[in-house]
Amino acid sequence: MDSLAILKIAMREFAKERDWDQFHSPKNLSMALAGETAELLDCFRWLTEEASYQLDSSQTQAVTDELADVLLFTVRLADKLNIDLMAAAEQKIAKNARHYPADKVKGSAKKYNQY
Amino acid sequence: MDSLAILKIAMREFAKERDWDQFHSPKNLSMALAGETAELLDCFRWLTEEASYQLDSSQTQAVTDELADVLLFTVRLADKLNIDLMAAAEQKIAKNARHYPADKVKGSAKKYNQY
Amino acid sequence: MDSLAILKIAMREFAKERDWDQFHSPKNLSMALAGETAELLDCFRWLTEEASYQLDSSQTQAVTDELADVLLFTVRLADKLNIDLMAAAEQKIAKNARHYPADKVKGSAKKYNQY
Amino acid sequence: MDSLAILKIAMREFAKERDWDQFHSPKNLSMALAGETAELLDCFRWLTEEASYQLDSSQTQAVTDELADVLLFTVRLADKLNIDLMAAAEQKIAKNARHYPADKVKGSAKKYNQY
Repeated sequence: MDSLAILKIAMREFAKERDWDQFHSPKNLSMALAGETAELLDCFRWLTEEASYQLDSSQTQAVTDELADVLLFTVRLADKLNIDLMAAAEQKIAKNARHYPADKVKGSAKKYNQY
Repeated sequence: MDSLAILKIAMREFAKERDWDQFHSPKNLSMALAGETAELLDCFRWLTEEASYQLDSSQTQAVTDELADVLLFTVRLADKLNIDLMAAAEQKIAKNARHYPADKVKGSAKKYNQY
Repeated sequence: MDSLAILKIAMREFAKERDWDQFHSPKNLSMALAGETAELLDCFRWLTEEASYQLDSSQTQAVTDELADVLLFTVRLADKLNIDLMAAAEQKIAKNARHYPADKVKGSAKKYNQY
Repeated sequence: MDSLAILKIAMREFAKERDWDQFHSPKNLSMALAGETAELLDCFRWLTEEASYQLDSSQTQAVTDELADVLLFTVRLADKLNIDLMAAAEQKIAKNARHYPADKVKGSAKKYNQY
C-alpha cells in the first residue's frame, strides 16, 4: 500500500483507540501542525546554514522526530477534510512550475509576484 | 512508485532545473516549512471548531494548497538531510503508542508528561 | 522610562554580557520569535475556545512565560533593524482602521480583501 | 502613558468598535499571533544571515508591518488573560539570567539544559 495511505489509516486507528477524534477538529490540527513545525525551527535557529547540513546524531534524531510529527499531522488534517494529499501535492508542483518557469527564475529566490 | 518517493524526486528535479539547491539549506527549508504551516493557521484562526469542518470551496482550495506546500517542504527537508520520512513516521507512531497507551489516555488530551 | 525602551536596553545588555550578538542576526531572531510563538499554540491546541479563557495557574504561568519570550524577541529583532516598534504599532493600527472601517466590518471577521 | 498601556487600550477600542471581542478568544489570538510571526519568517527565509541585516526599503517596510502585528496581538492576548506583560518580561529576563549565567555561556548558543 502507498505510504500516505498507510499513515492515514494508522492515524485514524490511533485516534479511534484513544477517543481523540473529539480533539481533532481541523482548527486544532492546524495548531498542532504549526506547533510541531516550529519545533523544527528550534533545531536550527542558532545554527549557520553550513552547520545545518552537518547535524550530529542527537540533532538528527530531534529533526527526524519533528519531521515525523509534521508529516503525521499533515496526513491527519488532510484526512479530516477529505483532501487527497498526493493529488494536492502534484497540482501544487504544476502550479509552481507555471509560477516559476525554469528559464526565468534560474538561480534567483524572488517570489513569483516580484518578477 | 511510492508517493513520498515520487515527491522527493519531483522536488529534486524542480530545484535542480532552477538552480535552487543553493537556497535549500536545512535551516532555510525549516523556515519555509514553518511559514507555510502558518498560512494554514490563517485559514482557521477566526473559525469555530465546528466551522473548521465545513469549509466552502474557496476555503478548501486554500487549505489544500497550503497542505501541499507543507508536504512538499517536509519531503524536501527530509531529503536534504537523508532522513527516511516513512521510517521516521512509523517510528514516531510506535513511540506515541508507548507514550499514550490507549487504555490510559482514552478521551483525554493531556500531554504524556502530565500523566 | 518607557517599557519598550527598558526592554530594548535590557536585551542589549543581556546579549552583550554573553557575547551573543553574533547569533542575533535578524534571520535567526525571526526563527526564535516564531519558535516561541508556536509554544503558545501548544498551550491552547486542544482547549476549546471557552476553556482558553479559563486557564489554571500552571497553564497561566506557561502562557505568561511564552508571551514574555515573544515580546522580548520582538523588541530585540526591532532593535537589530533599527525599527521603532511603537511607531510601527501606531502606524499599523491606523492602517488597520482604514482597512477595517468599523461601520463596515462590525461583527464580521472576514479579511479586508474579501469585502 | 506607557507604550504597552497605550497599545492595550487602543486594541480594546479597536475590537469594541468592530464587535470583534467574540473572535478574540485566547485560543484564536494565539493562532493570529503565530500566523503573523510566520510572515516574518517569509521575509527572511531565503536571505543569508548577512543579507538579513541589510534589508532594502520595501523589505524593511514588510518587516516593520509584521513586527507591529506581532506586538499588537501579543498585547491583545496578554490583555484577554489579564497578564501584566511588562512584569512577565522582566521576570523572564531574570529567569534567563539564572539559566544562562554570563560567565558560563559566553559565546555559546547551547540551550541551558545542555550545559
